[in-house]
Amino acid sequence: MTERHTISILVNDQPGVLARVANLFGQRGFNIESITVGQSEEEGLSRMIIVTSGNEQTVQQVMKQLHKLIDVIKVQQLSAFPMVARELVLIKVEATPQNRTEISGIVEPFRASIVDVGPQSLMIQATGDSEKVDALIQLLKPYGIKQLCRTGVTAMTRGAITAKV
Amino acid sequence: MTERHTISILVNDQPGVLARVANLFGQRGFNIESITVGQSEEEGLSRMIIVTSGNEQTVQQVMKQLHKLIDVIKVQQLSAFPMVARELVLIKVEATPQNRTEISGIVEPFRASIVDVGPQSLMIQATGDSEKVDALIQLLKPYGIKQLCRTGVTAMTRGAITAKV
Repeated sequence: MTERHTISILVNDQPGVLARVANLFGQRGFNIESITVGQSEEEGLSRMIIVTSGNEQTVQQVMKQLHKLIDVIKVQQLSAFPMVARELVLIKVEATPQNRTEISGIVEPFRASIVDVGPQSLMIQATGDSEKVDALIQLLKPYGIKQLCRTGVTAMTRGAITAKV
Repeated sequence: MTERHTISILVNDQPGVLARVANLFGQRGFNIESITVGQSEEEGLSRMIIVTSGNEQTVQQVMKQLHKLIDVIKVQQLSAFPMVARELVLIKVEATPQNRTEISGIVEPFRASIVDVGPQSLMIQATGDSEKVDALIQLLKPYGIKQLCRTGVTAMTRGAITAKV
């Protein structure tokens, strides 16, 4: 069964490691739905969060290959645990003085915020899981989306789960 | 003079394009401080936002090389315009029932929110520009940061600037 998997990869903060990981996915035909790379809690180490889809066998194969790469320290399947997954999106939507209030009414229930106002546009910032972000985008589409920037998903295991990846 | 530059790259949503971009930076010794990849406003196109550092000459060279890559549609230096830049961070910090309120008092002025509570930890979600995120991390460090996940920066030009990248 094809499912979404969220993988955390702790890597040495070295040039080339992103290329190595991206090459692995590209060459093996593994799908990257989303990737984020950022500083981790340890000096000199970065963490990549990759969302990929495939069956359980495929994801195990991906993880095995990732483990073998230079500068990869630890690999973990976060989605095997209870986790918090979030992404951030900026959306520039067409807006006139007449329909700005209407658009604000859509944005508020999503706890999103308007971060910039142009003569004919609004820029909206929202955070949430991918489903929430998708839902907001769908609601704003009829107004005309001029520009859309998503960070991709970052994720972390909940509570006491101390798996150090 | 070494400065931070934010580059937007519109690409065909094809496997291999991330590897090509990452390879370019790796091979030429260009530094990637942050990279985010996400769906754009056009079907089949993704947008990468890369934060890199170097002098103006270096960044122009990077952009020229990026333009030449297969599946790269448009390249633009966002930081040449007024822009909004944001990232999202999840921080798991050590917390006891005794100091939870104290930590909440730090989190609130940042408009950050507590998204999970464990027996000995809190998970905090914050968004903002990199400086704000850095400042929050510094304030939370003394409590003990168990885990840190940053999405990296996404960015968009303000208001009427219609540069379609």
